[in-house]
Amino acid sequence: MTRLTIAPGKLREFGLKVLSQLDVPRDKAQICVDAFLFGSLRGIDSHGLFPLLPRMAREIRGGVIDPKADVRIVKRQASTMLIDGCRGLGPVTAFQSMEEAIKLCRQKGMGGVSTYNCNHFGAASFYGCKAVKEGLIGITFCNATPRVTPYGGRQGIHGTNPMSFVVPAGKYPPLVVDIATSASSVGKISQALKKGERIPDGWALDETGNPTNDPKEALQGFLLPMADHKGYGLGLIVDILTGALADSYCGKEVPPLDDLTTPYGASFFMMVLDPGCFAGRDIFTEKVDRLIEDCITCPPMSGVERVYFPGEMEAMEETKRAKTGIPVLDTDLGTFFQSLGDHKLEIEKELLA
Amino acid sequence: MTRLTIAPGKLREFGLKVLSQLDVPRDKAQICVDAFLFGSLRGIDSHGLFPLLPRMAREIRGGVIDPKADVRIVKRQASTMLIDGCRGLGPVTAFQSMEEAIKLCRQKGMGGVSTYNCNHFGAASFYGCKAVKEGLIGITFCNATPRVTPYGGRQGIHGTNPMSFVVPAGKYPPLVVDIATSASSVGKISQALKKGERIPDGWALDETGNPTNDPKEALQGFLLPMADHKGYGLGLIVDILTGALADSYCGKEVPPLDDLTTPYGASFFMMVLDPGCFAGRDIFTEKVDRLIEDCITCPPMSGVERVYFPGEMEAMEETKRAKTGIPVLDTDLGTFFQSLGDHKLEIEKELLA
Repeated sequence: MTRLTIAPGKLREFGLKVLSQLDVPRDKAQICVDAFLFGSLRGIDSHGLFPLLPRMAREIRGGVIDPKADVRIVKRQASTMLIDGCRGLGPVTAFQSMEEAIKLCRQKGMGGVSTYNCNHFGAASFYGCKAVKEGLIGITFCNATPRVTPYGGRQGIHGTNPMSFVVPAGKYPPLVVDIATSASSVGKISQALKKGERIPDGWALDETGNPTNDPKEALQGFLLPMADHKGYGLGLIVDILTGALADSYCGKEVPPLDDLTTPYGASFFMMVLDPGCFAGRDIFTEKVDRLIEDCITCPPMSGVERVYFPGEMEAMEETKRAKTGIPVLDTDLGTFFQSLGDHKLEIEKELLA
Repeated sequence: MTRLTIAPGKLREFGLKVLSQLDVPRDKAQICVDAFLFGSLRGIDSHGLFPLLPRMAREIRGGVIDPKADVRIVKRQASTMLIDGCRGLGPVTAFQSMEEAIKLCRQKGMGGVSTYNCNHFGAASFYGCKAVKEGLIGITFCNATPRVTPYGGRQGIHGTNPMSFVVPAGKYPPLVVDIATSASSVGKISQALKKGERIPDGWALDETGNPTNDPKEALQGFLLPMADHKGYGLGLIVDILTGALADSYCGKEVPPLDDLTTPYGASFFMMVLDPGCFAGRDIFTEKVDRLIEDCITCPPMSGVERVYFPGEMEAMEETKRAKTGIPVLDTDLGTFFQSLGDHKLEIEKELLA
């Protein structure tokens, strides 16, 4: 298992070529590759081009994703919208939903969009960043396959159900909060298993409902909500603002993410707020800057070098990886190249040249 | 220290009489007493009539709260509003802000209200419950005195910053998530100190920035965010959607809650969503009912009797206390009666009759 480092531009071209061979229209392919590269650049590797591009390729080939689908507006009120994702490419559905939420916000000061029939969209904060580019606050919730047990229970009744808030700052990169409402994730537990490590207290139960530090038992069992009853509550709120608001799969009904032969069917909720409709945009970003400064100048606790503001480490990683390249495992690439069939050699040669 | 049990109706009359003697208009007094009784009835005693009514009485007498103030609308867009709380009674400011958010939501499908110059409003979910009575989802955020250190730091830079979501169900009481974004609260740590108990890991640091299980050291030190970097992020988001959006006190700037001689100056953010503008109200409450059923029928983990849905225990406590009465410590009452001066005897006689 070797770690290659590939320039983002090269990886981007590679992604576009792969999607073009799957008959994904160019504009949609760009959105997908940019969404996945956002994860790869910012060090959110679980939501990067690997593993998400190979997953998407399999789902397009299997006919589970419709690569040409645009979203369809089902219902519209002054500041809200209900949208059918039409089983389109996850990032395209999310991007178009966020575009609608931004339009509503521009007209009314605030916009809320509920979208169903969706696929995996990568990192939730990618879409909030789109709102931030226009000076707005972008909020994204998404439900997911039920792997998380309620507080006190031992059954998966909701997903890792992420919440993402992206906030424009003045002098600093955006403040980005992008978190699962579970204590951990299947991805992190799988990594621990690969590395032969134990997992911390509070992450998971085994299948009989006892706390476990064994990643294998955890994967056969259930994820725990973050912060006990608090994450349990917030996880349910995400399902309520996504699946329930859209009358789509909700809680236990959300299909398994890992079954690439049937449509996924997650739902999103996107919300955009204009600080200009409250006290004003300039004073808002000044306030956010001051808050950020209070964070980064906060004296650190014992054993910690310094305090970071939310999104700062990811922004630093993005700057770094943009220069030095994105780490990719050769095993990930190898498996992917094999899956490309006839196109394998040409793409492989170009990427690794 | 004896525990008395007083009927809610009697406690309500008592509260109204106290506020009337402080020249609080009757309609405003009713909102305050109902907001505080909501906490007392639902077992959220830290946000009940004691200690909040005595606190309010002191602040009215000190001229810090203006008991006659109504909110003042500063700025209005289609679905948003900026409001000056004018140092009014906390529950009155919050109630009137929620009323405006509900009106915006009725017109536009969604409403967002940012309010500054506010005082302590009791339990955040009281206001969301008002939206739920009209079939709407009510969301409330509030910032607070900086007692919580950022993840990795040792300085209070934001408050316990609660988030509350209240959601209408069909057959069940509302689903209520009402949580501080910190791991614990000053109230809970003070209780541990009183009882001579240690506090759990993850609640607090001492003043030098080391983790502590000693409640006394914790009170001299800093509260920790819930779930490490996740609660840190969400705590900041609450300050951003309250103080920053309103151009008011934000993060470290929020004045000390316990200094009853200067205005508090917290900010609220209220948001209301109409499920009828998405897939529809009936299907929404059906979905929420199903989610609630999945929670309460979830097999429990080892050592747990059964799983509750968020807000269920509080609703049960409310039903119980409405019948059997609200527990009050005689020491709390005694201190309060003393502070009433001339009116002491009459009120004391009535309440304890």
